[in-house]
Order: sequence, then C-alpha cells, then structure tokens
Amino acid sequence: MPSTVILDNPLDMHLHLRDGEMLQHIAEESAHTFSGAVVMPNLVPPVSSKEDVIAYRTRIMEAIGNETFEPYMTLFFKPGYDKAFLESVRDRIHAIKLYPAGITTNSEGGVSGFNVEELRPALEAMSALNIPLCIHGETNGFVMDREAEFVSIYETLAEAFPSLKIIMEHITTKESVAALDRFENLYATITLHHLIITLDDVAGGMLQPHLFCKPIAKRPEDKEALLEVALDAHPKVMFGSDSAPHPRHAKEACGCAAGVFTAPIALQVLTELFEKHGRLENLQNFISGNARKIYGIIPPAKKVILEKKPFKVPGDYNGVVPMFAGEEIAYSVKGVTHG
Amino acid sequence: MPSTVILDNPLDMHLHLRDGEMLQHIAEESAHTFSGAVVMPNLVPPVSSKEDVIAYRTRIMEAIGNETFEPYMTLFFKPGYDKAFLESVRDRIHAIKLYPAGITTNSEGGVSGFNVEELRPALEAMSALNIPLCIHGETNGFVMDREAEFVSIYETLAEAFPSLKIIMEHITTKESVAALDRFENLYATITLHHLIITLDDVAGGMLQPHLFCKPIAKRPEDKEALLEVALDAHPKVMFGSDSAPHPRHAKEACGCAAGVFTAPIALQVLTELFEKHGRLENLQNFISGNARKIYGIIPPAKKVILEKKPFKVPGDYNGVVPMFAGEEIAYSVKGVTHG
Repeated sequence: MPSTVILDNPLDMHLHLRDGEMLQHIAEESAHTFSGAVVMPNLVPPVSSKEDVIAYRTRIMEAIGNETFEPYMTLFFKPGYDKAFLESVRDRIHAIKLYPAGITTNSEGGVSGFNVEELRPALEAMSALNIPLCIHGETNGFVMDREAEFVSIYETLAEAFPSLKIIMEHITTKESVAALDRFENLYATITLHHLIITLDDVAGGMLQPHLFCKPIAKRPEDKEALLEVALDAHPKVMFGSDSAPHPRHAKEACGCAAGVFTAPIALQVLTELFEKHGRLENLQNFISGNARKIYGIIPPAKKVILEKKPFKVPGDYNGVVPMFAGEEIAYSVKGVTHG
Repeated sequence: MPSTVILDNPLDMHLHLRDGEMLQHIAEESAHTFSGAVVMPNLVPPVSSKEDVIAYRTRIMEAIGNETFEPYMTLFFKPGYDKAFLESVRDRIHAIKLYPAGITTNSEGGVSGFNVEELRPALEAMSALNIPLCIHGETNGFVMDREAEFVSIYETLAEAFPSLKIIMEHITTKESVAALDRFENLYATITLHHLIITLDDVAGGMLQPHLFCKPIAKRPEDKEALLEVALDAHPKVMFGSDSAPHPRHAKEACGCAAGVFTAPIALQVLTELFEKHGRLENLQNFISGNARKIYGIIPPAKKVILEKKPFKVPGDYNGVVPMFAGEEIAYSVKGVTHG
C-alpha cells in the first residue's frame, strides 16, 4: 500500500486568481486542496477600495462553487491610504500589497521611489491596525540584481516602521534570506518553483517560457539558501505559490508574460521535495502553521491526503500550462476531507 | 543629402547558414552585403570530411546565386583528426570549429573534457598547418557562469599550443575580453547583439525569444567590456554575427531554439552604433581589416554604401524573424558595388 501524507489546512499565502473567465477556469484548482489563500490585488484596475474588495471576494466565492476555501483579500497599496479608510476596510482585508511601479503584471499604478516620510501616514496606520504589508521587492535594476538591490529598501522600511509586519513576497535570493534574521518584523513567502529551478532551467537549455516568472529564478546558491529555510520551516517563512495563470498563447509567444502556474500540483510536489530531503516533519509548518501565526488566522478545516503514487500532470488546465506539464510527479492527491 | 558611410569588403567571421530550405532562404541576406563569411559546420550530421566541405560549399554557392561572396569553410573538430587528413583538407578550409559536447545547436558530437594530451596530435597538426581553431567556449555550468568558467580552458590550450591561433567565438563576458591580452595566440569574434543587449533585454521585461541565444547575453559590465574592444577595433577582435536563423515557430514556442538572426541588418546597425559612440573610423577594421590579418585572407572586392536614412526592418525574412523586426534603424544600405 502506498505511503500517505496528511496535510492539515494548507495555505497559499501568495496567489493570483485573476478575474473574469480565467478566475472561473482556475480558482477551483486552488480551492480544492487549499484551506485558504492570500489573493493578490493586481487586477485591471487594481483592487483599491472597500467596494472592490467586497465585489472581488464575491466573484471568487462564486467561482469556487462548493469548495471550502477562504480567500484572504488584499488591497493594492497606494501611499494616499489614510487611517480612516484603512479602519473602514480593516475587517475585509488581511494584508496590503505594495508593488514598485511597473515591475510586474499590472503594477503600473504602484509606488515609485520609497520616501519614508511620504509613506509614513499609511504605514503607521497599517502598523496601528496590524495590517501586514506584502511587498514585491524588486528595483528597476539589472534583472539578476533587482531583488538583492531591494534589500536595503526592506531594511529602511523595517527600521522606520518597527511595528509593521513586512512580508518579503516570493523571495528568490540568499540576500533576502539573510535579511529575515536581521529584522524582527521581516517575514517572507517562498514559491514552489523557486525551490526547484534556477535561471538554468529557464534559459540554460532551450528557452522555457512556462518557467519564466518575476522575480526571475536566480543562481544555484540562491536556491540552496531558499531550500534551507523552507525545509527548516523557519518560523518567519511561509509557502506562497505566486501561482499565476496565463493562457498558453500568452506564454508561448514573442513577449511572453511572466508567471508559473503551480496551484494544482504544489502540495504534491512540495511533499515529494520535503520527503526527498528527509524533512517531511517540517512541511506542515511551512504549508500552514507558520502562516497561521504570522497572519493570526484560523483557516477553514481541511485535510488533504496525499499518497505516494505517480501522477501524470495534465498538459494544461483549461488552456493554462502548469509546471511539470506532461511529466510524472511522485505524489497524488488521494482525497480531501472537511470539517 | 543624407550622410553616407562606405565599408570595404565586410566580413562576417562567424555565420550559420544551415542547410536545405533554410540555406536557400537566408544565404542571400549575407551574400548581398558581405564579401565573405566563416561558415559554421554544425549541420546534422556535422561537416567533418573533405567531401562534406566540398559539397556544402557547392550548396552554398548555388544558394547565393550571382552574388560575389566567399564562404570560408570550416570543419567540425574531432580529436581524431590526424596530420595526413588535415593536410589533405587544408586548401579547402579556413578554420576548424570546436564545440564542447551538447552545448549548443547540433553540438552533440563535440568534445567532452579537454585533455591536452588527447587533443595534442590534432592541435599540433593544426598549428603546423596554420589552421585556426575556433572554439565555442562554454562549460556545462550555470548559464551565467559558463563562459567565464571556460576561460581557464582557453588559457590551458593557449599555453599548451603557443603556435595555434585560437579564436574565442562570440565572446560575451569581461573575463574573455581580459584573456585576449594575456595570451598572444588568443583572438575573438564579437556579435552585433552582444554589443547591444544584456540579459535584461531577454528576460528583464517580457521574455523575448528572438533575443535568446547561446552564449546568453550577460551583465551590463560585460556588454561594456565588449563594446570597448569592438569600438577600439582591438586588433585581436573581429566581427562575427553568429547570425542563426530559426523559423518563427521554433522561436515562439515552448522550448525555444537559441539564436539571433542579424545578417540582414548587421552592417546598418553596426554603423549606427559606431557613429553613436563617435568611433566610425574604427568600423572598417572591426568589420574587415582585423579579420584579414588574423586569417590571412583577401576577400572578394565589394563596397557597401550605407546612408543615414531610416529603414524599417521587416517582420521576417522568409519566416525568420530578425533582430529589430518591425523597428526603425537609422541606416539603410544604399548600394553595393563589386570589383
């Protein structure tokens, strides 16, 4: 009988569900196996008002049908958010996501320059209301240096706003890993794909558009640093897939969009990865426990039973090509129980 | 009246003409504006016998029709080449190209490991016969490190075979540039695209498959080092486009092939580049003079007249998408005169 692994209340602390037809096509893939997910607000236009949040949440709940799944909603950070607004929206959101302007998909309305005094009113209000600030931490510099260059901005913000929970989203470098332990209020999410690939997998052989993402996968020593804290379930690190669906024609094209679609296979592959490294006992905290503490959330009860039985990953899910498309992975989802 | 620039006998010291239908489609693009080109031997199967060289040259001459153009033929290096064979083929070839096994398009039959004693018979015969050795210098390491890691192999060969002309093909790093001046018998070709792009242009915004090549474009400081020796027309540096045609469907795909197609626009863009940097006076040596001396060749007489008049680059040439497709470049080819 194949061995099984049970994960309680898996959480994806960084997820793109998009909107419209794409939302309908892919939301269920996360809702089936995850208890909840922090949903990114970079729609067009971005989610930036209470009404936007309520309406987007409603669309998500419709898209997931009967699944037990909590979408932890976020706002798109704007320096103009004041305390009254943030108080009014506090019970509808779990975090606010800050994008440097123009750095990734639909981030044109993001922050340019990081002037502490300009950001102070909004960030002090967030500190007071205990709203975590999630940041896509990249400068506009050379593609391999963008995240390492951003570390000094993380540090400036962490020092200037010591009561603000700052979450370094989808970190990809040893420099970000090192920053985690230098500041009490810095946390991080790590994706599945950045635990597995480097730039070699994207551009070392043939060019692989389905592994192209932002931040781009970095060097082998960066991947090792990420793996170390993930496999340790370092208490300041959470799983966040950054799973980002784009239709095949937008990926296999001249000017391919950034994003790797991992939602449907993330739990299976994480189980395989942690087992391979003999660290299965830490997966529960990486996939749920740490996030519960950092965000102070109680996710809907869900047990996911994985069994060690090969699963051939489909070539696409409704036209979206997943990581490991057409390949065999070691674990399958045997069942999901609720309540 | 627009200003004009006249280039005498332009040479492309590293060119892929492929074979069959592709050869028919694109050979003329080089033959029209270049006096000659060093033609790479990585066909399937590779060009590795006297008969192969003669037959391939014949196919090239048929493909270029009435153009005045000399294809400088090369053999695909095999460690088993002996002096008798090399003597027999000497008057048919201008260089031998060495590929590390599996490192780029059709290089599966290349060299694994670089054991000097194993290579000695062939390389000493090449030294005696004054046949340059062209090398695609990449290890199987991390994609951004492969060329820098290979420099120690260049150095080993340069020391072990001091009379062998070693040409570091399509160099992309400051480490290779620095090696040029450390060994008398090391030379280099530099492409157009590596003088213009970095990894940022390939993967910093949307992914750009038409700029994906091997070696991959590197960091800004690498590009600056290449530009410096190219604009200086450093006497050990020659233009080699590495222009490599792949049909659109092989580039805009999952698993995109490596290669940038620049043959039809190389002279125009190089003129613009050298002019922009105020170094037009060095273009003639970079594009022809240095190569004539290094290879000891006298190319067919050809004058290319370029005028400063915007040219809109076609979206494709017989299904092959060129660099700058659909964009406007500053110089046009006004005319070509022969003899």
